[in-house]
Amino acid sequence: MTDTILADLTVVEVSAFIAAPVGGMTLAQMGAEVIRIDPIGGNIDHGRWPLAPNGASLYWAGLNKGKRSICLALNTDQGREIAQALITQPGAGRGILLTNLPASGWMSHASLAARRQDLITLKLTGNHDGSGAIDYTVNCASGFPLATGTGGEPVNHVLPAWDIAAGLYLATGLLAAERARQRDGQGREVTLALSDVMLATVANLGYVADYQVNGAIRPPMGNDLYGAYGRDFPTHDDRRVMIAAISNRQWRAIGKATGLSEKLAMIGPMLEVDLAEEGGRFAARHAISAVLAPWFAKHTLAEIGAAFEGSGVLWGPYQDFGQLVTQDPRCSTANPIFATIDQPGIGRLLTPSVPLRFAGGACPPPLPAPRLGEHTDAVLAERLGLTMSAIGKLHDAGIVAGADGH
Amino acid sequence: MTDTILADLTVVEVSAFIAAPVGGMTLAQMGAEVIRIDPIGGNIDHGRWPLAPNGASLYWAGLNKGKRSICLALNTDQGREIAQALITQPGAGRGILLTNLPASGWMSHASLAARRQDLITLKLTGNHDGSGAIDYTVNCASGFPLATGTGGEPVNHVLPAWDIAAGLYLATGLLAAERARQRDGQGREVTLALSDVMLATVANLGYVADYQVNGAIRPPMGNDLYGAYGRDFPTHDDRRVMIAAISNRQWRAIGKATGLSEKLAMIGPMLEVDLAEEGGRFAARHAISAVLAPWFAKHTLAEIGAAFEGSGVLWGPYQDFGQLVTQDPRCSTANPIFATIDQPGIGRLLTPSVPLRFAGGACPPPLPAPRLGEHTDAVLAERLGLTMSAIGKLHDAGIVAGADGH
Repeated sequence: MTDTILADLTVVEVSAFIAAPVGGMTLAQMGAEVIRIDPIGGNIDHGRWPLAPNGASLYWAGLNKGKRSICLALNTDQGREIAQALITQPGAGRGILLTNLPASGWMSHASLAARRQDLITLKLTGNHDGSGAIDYTVNCASGFPLATGTGGEPVNHVLPAWDIAAGLYLATGLLAAERARQRDGQGREVTLALSDVMLATVANLGYVADYQVNGAIRPPMGNDLYGAYGRDFPTHDDRRVMIAAISNRQWRAIGKATGLSEKLAMIGPMLEVDLAEEGGRFAARHAISAVLAPWFAKHTLAEIGAAFEGSGVLWGPYQDFGQLVTQDPRCSTANPIFATIDQPGIGRLLTPSVPLRFAGGACPPPLPAPRLGEHTDAVLAERLGLTMSAIGKLHDAGIVAGADGH
Repeated sequence: MTDTILADLTVVEVSAFIAAPVGGMTLAQMGAEVIRIDPIGGNIDHGRWPLAPNGASLYWAGLNKGKRSICLALNTDQGREIAQALITQPGAGRGILLTNLPASGWMSHASLAARRQDLITLKLTGNHDGSGAIDYTVNCASGFPLATGTGGEPVNHVLPAWDIAAGLYLATGLLAAERARQRDGQGREVTLALSDVMLATVANLGYVADYQVNGAIRPPMGNDLYGAYGRDFPTHDDRRVMIAAISNRQWRAIGKATGLSEKLAMIGPMLEVDLAEEGGRFAARHAISAVLAPWFAKHTLAEIGAAFEGSGVLWGPYQDFGQLVTQDPRCSTANPIFATIDQPGIGRLLTPSVPLRFAGGACPPPLPAPRLGEHTDAVLAERLGLTMSAIGKLHDAGIVAGADGH
């Protein structure tokens, strides 16, 4: 795949769980060769739930698509020597390590840079002082769980949002560091703390400033939008929909599509707010909802969809994961990011590529995850030039392992 | 700042709201020159809540840090001509447009590529067919709101997680496309649909596969972790903490730090589960919580912190946004990503840099957002070589505007 966007980039990943694997996968899905090194038998995430009936981890398969997998006895000097050799391979576009494991000892930047001076390492930690944290223990500190739901008790998000963002920061930082190395020949040690991703984001979104400037702490307000109009409504057939209006055009579209423009227009003078402004609509949101709710309660999801089709209303139905897979055409092969492919060890799965679409098809199609150790022999031969005989000896000595431990 | 990571990269951003601005800001925070073009008076997001008492948008300031701001009359041919000239400037590391606005007409890839053949455009849309969607209307379809909270009604996350992820995908895709252009000289049109970010992520995390393989739809389970042990507990002083154990080491640390190892060990035989496995701990989570809850109820947050200090327990307190700013040392200038700087038009704010830390300080320090139009004259002079006299005429004709409309 020499014509893919990142065809000439090689990244070695020593990782577990979500964030670092998402970073590596994003690059692999744009054509980079991402070699994930695992200890023999797999890392701590290899059996993570959800599982297929045969015990294969659907989680691991989802987060390691498009990578090559090699298993090394990382508790032996010889296994570590092979890992170091792979990480510090000479050549442009190589010499890059991505990890969320404690990068000390043989995997420290200093130790690896002794073998390749212009090495780039990206290391994810929990906190900036190196202490441990995961998405859940970062999220509770963020302020969001206490602003989610209707108040009283904190509500955790289920999406591991900080892990996802951290993975994408790692991919961005890796490409930035490698771009700089092309210019100046310098290696770089880059660190990212999961809690810093949270802290920077909370500040970027204005929550820190809102407290510092206004002393304001955003309260929970259910599914209402803050600072604009939007919320969810139950439908006649017991579904739910979300609607939102940010622009005036979107706001007018709601009135027009529901036939309630005149009634909605009464709210402005009644509450002395300007409904031509986002903030006015936010202030009047309960009155607006009171006017709209009966309309949603009278119509089925299908009727609502028909009324909103082509209307310019921003809306969507709530769906559970099953409805998403079975009823949303965006979650099907009708969407160019998806294909149904064979995931070795699991079966036929609807599988996404990277969501970025490069005109001209310069990214690989949706790719499966490797079997654990699937590329052990190939990587040792292609990347380190080992002979079949040498590779066989490493297997015999338990220094390397192939597909699923064989 | 010629020695920053992305010093020789120039990106023109024509954007609003969160996702595209986050993408541009991330690059600006690594040293790229990001020129945000707005219509005179600002784009639709310029007055978005939360606001400072003087009406300045804390939201806009948070999402546009480190950029240069130029205001053009984009509804005039002359204003568009200037925008096109800025976007298609010759030179390596230039000729890159990042936008989430409808990129048609003068801002289409084809129209711009007629002026610079190797142009790179990154365009964010709502859905892959070009139709509109925002974080709220994408999120409702994702399955997560129906899996969040304790069930019954859907719960929206408050963090605009899909926007944040989309912004970081845009930054990644931009660097990937520019890297490829350095190699092959080719421009690229890159599109990203916000709903595709959601769909790819839901699939990457195994939810699509879990439905396809097992017919399983993840139910809401409050603040419990799925597939491992973790949840929140109220403390003696009416605070709440989150604890989690992914690894066996973290699991054992909970028993040791609370002095409840022996009682916890009784659960395995009692429920016939293996507590040395994540899945076993998940299955036994209610019994585990029953043993742990009285311990948390008996201790204050400070006592719990002292007991867990250095213990290897993964935990954190729930904090609201105010507690985050006032009580968490990570959210202060003790953390290297933060500095307190002057945000023009607003005042002194605790402000983050990019959370990625490059050893050797190769990223700019925390930067403020520009005033709207602050760099209009400078950009026209430096980038397009216009004379002061020519710039003055553009002001007089209402084609350009400087800081805050002057």
